[in-house]
This record gives sequence, structure tokens and C-alpha cells, in this order.
Amino acid sequence: MPTDLRLEPRDLPLLTDLYELTMAASYFQLGFNEPACFTLSVRRLPPQRGFLVAAGLERTLEALEDFQFSQAAIDSLEALKLFTPEFLHYLSSFRFTCEVDAIPEGTIFFAEEPILEVSGPLIEAQIVESLIMNQIGLATLIASKAARSVLAARGRRLVDFGLRRSQGVDAGLVAARSSYLAGFVGTSNVLAGCRYGIPLYGTMAHSYVMVHEREREAFEHFVELFPRLSTLVVDTYDTIRGVENAALVARNLRNKGLKLQAVRLDSGNLADLSIRARRILDQNGLQDVSIFASGNLDEYRIRDLVRAGAPIDAFGVGTAMVVSADAPSLDLVYKLAEYRGIPRLKTSANKATLPGRKQWFRAFNSSGGFYCDMIGLADEGAATVAREFRPPPVEVLPMMQPQFRQNRRLGSRPSLAESRERLLESMAKLEQRYKDLDKPAAYPVKYTAALNAMLINERMRTERRQS
Amino acid sequence: MPTDLRLEPRDLPLLTDLYELTMAASYFQLGFNEPACFTLSVRRLPPQRGFLVAAGLERTLEALEDFQFSQAAIDSLEALKLFTPEFLHYLSSFRFTCEVDAIPEGTIFFAEEPILEVSGPLIEAQIVESLIMNQIGLATLIASKAARSVLAARGRRLVDFGLRRSQGVDAGLVAARSSYLAGFVGTSNVLAGCRYGIPLYGTMAHSYVMVHEREREAFEHFVELFPRLSTLVVDTYDTIRGVENAALVARNLRNKGLKLQAVRLDSGNLADLSIRARRILDQNGLQDVSIFASGNLDEYRIRDLVRAGAPIDAFGVGTAMVVSADAPSLDLVYKLAEYRGIPRLKTSANKATLPGRKQWFRAFNSSGGFYCDMIGLADEGAATVAREFRPPPVEVLPMMQPQFRQNRRLGSRPSLAESRERLLESMAKLEQRYKDLDKPAAYPVKYTAALNAMLINERMRTERRQS
Repeated sequence: MPTDLRLEPRDLPLLTDLYELTMAASYFQLGFNEPACFTLSVRRLPPQRGFLVAAGLERTLEALEDFQFSQAAIDSLEALKLFTPEFLHYLSSFRFTCEVDAIPEGTIFFAEEPILEVSGPLIEAQIVESLIMNQIGLATLIASKAARSVLAARGRRLVDFGLRRSQGVDAGLVAARSSYLAGFVGTSNVLAGCRYGIPLYGTMAHSYVMVHEREREAFEHFVELFPRLSTLVVDTYDTIRGVENAALVARNLRNKGLKLQAVRLDSGNLADLSIRARRILDQNGLQDVSIFASGNLDEYRIRDLVRAGAPIDAFGVGTAMVVSADAPSLDLVYKLAEYRGIPRLKTSANKATLPGRKQWFRAFNSSGGFYCDMIGLADEGAATVAREFRPPPVEVLPMMQPQFRQNRRLGSRPSLAESRERLLESMAKLEQRYKDLDKPAAYPVKYTAALNAMLINERMRTERRQS
Repeated sequence: MPTDLRLEPRDLPLLTDLYELTMAASYFQLGFNEPACFTLSVRRLPPQRGFLVAAGLERTLEALEDFQFSQAAIDSLEALKLFTPEFLHYLSSFRFTCEVDAIPEGTIFFAEEPILEVSGPLIEAQIVESLIMNQIGLATLIASKAARSVLAARGRRLVDFGLRRSQGVDAGLVAARSSYLAGFVGTSNVLAGCRYGIPLYGTMAHSYVMVHEREREAFEHFVELFPRLSTLVVDTYDTIRGVENAALVARNLRNKGLKLQAVRLDSGNLADLSIRARRILDQNGLQDVSIFASGNLDEYRIRDLVRAGAPIDAFGVGTAMVVSADAPSLDLVYKLAEYRGIPRLKTSANKATLPGRKQWFRAFNSSGGFYCDMIGLADEGAATVAREFRPPPVEVLPMMQPQFRQNRRLGSRPSLAESRERLLESMAKLEQRYKDLDKPAAYPVKYTAALNAMLINERMRTERRQS
């Protein structure tokens, strides 16, 4: 019997908002299926965020390759009694044939910059909206949040411990993947480790200590069986006595050639406890035993601990990172930018959009740093746009790349490890003031003269659309 | 080629934290597999929350029925080079045989009260921790958040529009299900509608208006094709002109026997715009056309709109509800309470737990309202505990019920609609002061004398566990 937690490829096309299908049915009936372009972007950065990190593209493109309505899905739709047999027949042979251009995973980007554009038959481009937003939105949200902990930790290791508090099983997988992309060293999530090749980490739960009659006995048992993973949780009862017990066990086991890896602090004043734990370990000649900290950590607490000089070697980060607690959603939108070759835009209060198929450009200086981005039109070239930047750049790169053509992902895809590497390199080149955790400076994002001209033109044109 | 968004039943056992498996391997090696009891509860209510609504049990129990390590899963674990062949062999025949007692979905509950207890062989009870926490946590989080919008709306209809901003595909499904449980009338999420029998709702996107050369033409097309679902989004350009266009179209189509259902406001000052829209519709004899509002709504904005007398008939609620924006996680824990018949507890700073197998009791007064809960031990009876309540109750009910025995869910399960009905009835019986959206009063939750005595005893006992 299949579990309700299942999600099979054939379920994907139904993972959509009803209006995508009613609009599609209407377009089908009206014969509206000429080329359209939709743009995915974040309207405004969340509070405290100076930048975002793109993620989720690979999972999304893979889903688009597989996007097909099964007979079971068609039957479910038929039962709704909303659609004509002709439209259901059309859906049964539906394939996603649009072109997708996007910034690669691990790209640092800012508000309004297109993350992705879908160009192709209107119905196809419309029907994938909910899925694309859901997936790119979540992965980008978490990668952007996790990158902040990486900045705060200043080289100390970070591990994702968030599965249990993530918002569902898909979120747990995405959190592991996005945090690794952002610079974490691994995850506790076994399925994510196996599926994405992310290094797996684990310590022990308090219950392990509690099922033993003596804490020390629990420690001995665990180190003997899993020396390589021997991180002992020392705060089940009194933390300092727990560290002393861990030290005692470590000394005894050293004679047997077994090494304790770390102790884990999971509650209380971590700055104070880590200093006292370090002292106890050192006094026992256990300089090589690390201190691992966890328990409601986020980038702010990690920064404070690092600044306070707490001798913590690694952090387990869970809840706050995996739900992006201080900003649990992105103001992400997927908006029609062009139809039948004509630019389109909406002019709703505070929700206006940019018309036309677009590209965006990043200007680099002589030290490889980037200092300004410019959103332009798809047919503008980097060489031309370069002239619009002040001060003049050493290099200008177009940021969106072809990703999906003729029903397939293009070329050789970057591995997760490669995307991670690329992000860490870019991050090092982003000026510190944009990376401030509390009050980041606003990175300059401008429009090219051509886009500005189109905006003015098209705003006037919308007047007529309501007459 | 299977998509990466897939989640098959055989993947579930790997959706766990590595330490669950290393601890299990250690228990297997040590021969530690006697009866254990783990308790799932929320340590503290999130800020602004006066109560929580239990959800997610049915999906979780269904997953536990299916919980099996496939050969592929065993192969993945073998590749980690952490586990012995004997342990992997044990996993390959693993079934979840524990007993589960839990409060039914739709039960209102408070901090510290057990949501669920798992009793059975230590390894089995330990290994399902991450999955149970992930699923019950998310579903309960969203149901609790959505119930607040239901309170704020005072009878106006609410529809879940959150799929695109939910944290992943699983979260999208759970949000639709949990919000319906909490009193929403339906969802836009097609898969959730089909899977859970939730009524489906849809309006139209701005893109529908934008692909047409004229707004009015878009409105006509949509009403003609989907009269039953004809909610026209009127804020693509200027909202008031949009309402006027909708009214014009509605009047023209009335002659053809077609009825416009509603207009949808999605931006701007909704209180002001809804009054102006109502006036325009009424002036056109369209008193039967509803006003639907959406756009960054949450329980606070809905309350303010209702209080301001905005003539809005229904609300589409998305982002803030589906990510539980003001409290995106629960302080949920799954803690060992008993092993080998001996109560267990941890005494970590601010993270202490309650020992022993438990039950909890709710006291009702003569008008059917409930006014105090008491957490006790599993072997205490409601009749005995009743004597401990002040003032004396008319009725006392034990809240956790047997749910899972011998590898199967018990008896006839409540349908989602039944759980929804039960919740709405309980909610009506909960005093208003506990339902305040900003500063709810703290509902009284006490311990029975027997649990208090055990707590004192066991705290002293833990002293010895560190010696």
C-alpha cells in the first residue's frame, strides 16, 4: 500500500494551482498558445538580507524533463467536471518544450534580477508556474539563509541537523542540499547524503545516555562501536560532570587505541560551557578532542560565540536555518513578460513588473570583485551594456545561461560540489558591507537604457488595455 | 527517469538522522532492545500562540505501516561503511511493531501535553524519531496557524493559496490538508484536492489578463468558459477601472444567462478598495457578485479588515499561513520517558523532560467548555484524576487514544472532514481569552500528584547516573 508521503513523478503535474489548469483550458479553447515569456524573480529582499543565493535549478529542471500527466492524473482531473474531453486529451500528451534560461545554482543575486525565464508556448509556460516557484523558492531561501551562518562561522565547520524541524520531507532534503551548497560541510539527513553525495555526520541523542544506567557506560559503549563518529552529548544531566565523564572515558579508551572525536554541548551558556569544557579536556591531555555546539543556533548566535572567542570547533545548525526563521519566505514572483512578441507588464500598486525577455549583467573590477549589476533586455550584449556602468568595468558578464532546450537539460550539468565551490569563490569577492548580517548595504542594481525606455513605453500602453 | 522530487515509500526509512541509525546499530550490538517509551510534545508555545491544533497523525501512521528498508536502502547504508552485515540484515527485515497512542487530529492542546507516545522495542521506537517529528511538527504548525485566520475571519470563507510559497512539495500538500482541517473551505492545490477530497478553488492570474489585448476581453473569455469559477482579478492595471470592467462584463453576460461569481482584489488598500468595489457592483445591480481578497494576508490583517467592516466575502490566504510566518517552527521534542520499565528523564538547562508513560486529562464544565488539563501517568484513571481538579469538573476525559497496534492503524479512522468538524466544535468551547491573537491567556496545564511525585523521585535518581 503506497504511503501518503509518497510523491511520484506522475503526481507532479497535479502539484499546481487550479487556476493554472483553468487558464490553460481557456487558452486551449481560445487557441491562445503563441510564444510567451515568464520571468522568475524576487521583488524585494527579506529584512536583514543583503544578497540571495540561487538554488534549486537542477531539481526543477529534472522535474520539467519528467513533466507528464499520467492516466491517473487525467482521471482525477476528469472527475472534477471542469474540463472538456478535448483539453484532457491535450494534457495527456503534454510535454514541456519551452526554453529555460537561468542563473546557475550558487549564483549570488539581488532583488528584481531574473533567476530564470521560461520561453515557449503560453500554456506550457503557464502550467509549470506553481512547481517552479515552490522549488526554486524553497531552495534559494535556505541557501541564502545558510550562507549567513557560513559567513558568521568564519571557517568553523557547520553541519545541517534540521530534518526533524524542517517543513516536511521535501524541505528536509532541500535544506540539506542547499546548506551544503552554501558551504556547510555535511548533514545528518541520511537520504540527502545518499541522494546528493553530501557527507553525513552524526553525534548521539540524549536518549542514548538515558537508556544506560550510567552516563559513563553510555560513552564507553558509543566510542567503542563508532570511534569515527564518537561525538558524545554531555548535557543530558549536568554538563560539566558530563564533560568530566567524557574525558575519563577518552583517557581510558586511548589505551585501547580508540580516540574520542568530540564532545557536544546542546544547552546552557555555550560560550561559558565551551571554555570550561576546553579546559577540562586540555587538563586531561585531550587537546585533540573537538568541541561541537548545537541547540537553537543561527547566524547571530554563531557570530556572537565566535566573537566571544568560544573554543567551539563546529556547529550543528537546525531549526532556524532549515525554516529560515527570520524570513521564512521569499517575495518570489513568476510574471508574464512577453506574449506574441509584445512586452507585457502589470502596474498593480507595489507589485509592478518588468516587461520583455531579459538578461542581466554583472560588472567586475580589476581585483575580480563585482560592484554593480544591470538588468537589460535579452538581445542586449555585454559589450554594449558595459559602456553603461560607472566606473567602467574590467569585465561584464551576462548572468543567465541557456539551461533547457528541446525537452532536455543542456550539456554537462555542474555537480553540487562544483556549484558550492563557485559560490564560495564569489562570496569571497562580494564586498563585506553587502554581507553584514544586520544592516547590509543595498547592492546597486540598475536598468539598462533600453529596459528603461521599454518600461516607459509599456506603462503608457497599459492605459489602453483597460479601455 | 525518476525525478529527484520523487519520494517513494522505500525512501522513508532513510529519511532519518544518521545518529538514529548509529544508535540503533549500537543497541543492536549491545542487545539493548527492551521496551521503551518516547513522548512527543511541544516544550513551549510559540509567541502569540494560546493553543495548538494537533495534525499529521494519519499521514504519519500510514508511513509507519509502510516503514521498510528496501534492498536499495540497505545497499546505500552498506556503502557508508559504518554498519556490520548483521545489523544491515536486521534492518532488512525491520518492521515497526511499537504501540502508538496519540491525540486525534484536530485536538486542541497546549505546551508539555503529550501529542503521541511510542511504546515498544527500543530500536524501533528510536529509529522513527526524525520522521514522526518532521511530519507531526509541520502539520500541527500549519493547522495551528490556519486556525487563527479562521478565528479572525468570523465566518467569512478562507481558501489556501499557498502552494507556490510553501516550503517544498510536501509542505504544500500538508498546508492544504492542515488548513482545511482548521476550517478553511478549500485549497487551490490540485493534488491536495484530489488526494484528500478537499474542495478546489481557483481564480485567475494576472497573466490571463495580460495575454489579452484588452482587460474586458479577458474577463468575457473567462466567465464564458468557467462561469462556476469566474472570479476575476481586477488589479492587473488600475483596480477601480478593473472593477468597472468586471461589472460591465457581468451585466452583458447576464443577458446570456451567465453569472459572474466574484471579483478579486490582490493589492492596494483592501479595506478602501473593497468598499469602492462593493459600491460599483451594487450600482450595477450586481449585489450577488462577491468580493474576494488576497495578497499577503494573515490573521492580523484579516482581523483588521473584518473589524473595519470591509465588505469582503472571502479571503485567499497564502504565504504567511503556509510557512507559519510569525512562528515557522515548533519547539517539538521526542524524548525517552521510560526504558525497561524504569522512568527516564533529562535535566538539561531549560530542556528538562517528563518521565514515565503518560496520559493527560481534560476537565469540562456544565456547559461543555474545558477549563483545565492535567498531565498524569498512563495507569491513572480519569475518575481518580477528576478529584484533583479545582473547581470540580462535570466530566474528565483522557485525551490520548490507542492508534496503532500490531503493525497496523487501529479501527475505523476519522475522515479529514470528521476531524475538521470535531475541531470546530472544540474551538467553540474554548474560552475567548485563550484565543486572543496577540496576548492569549495561558491555559492551565497541571501535573497529577502521581506525576509530581515521580518527577521529584526521578530527578534525585539522575544524580547517580553521572557518578
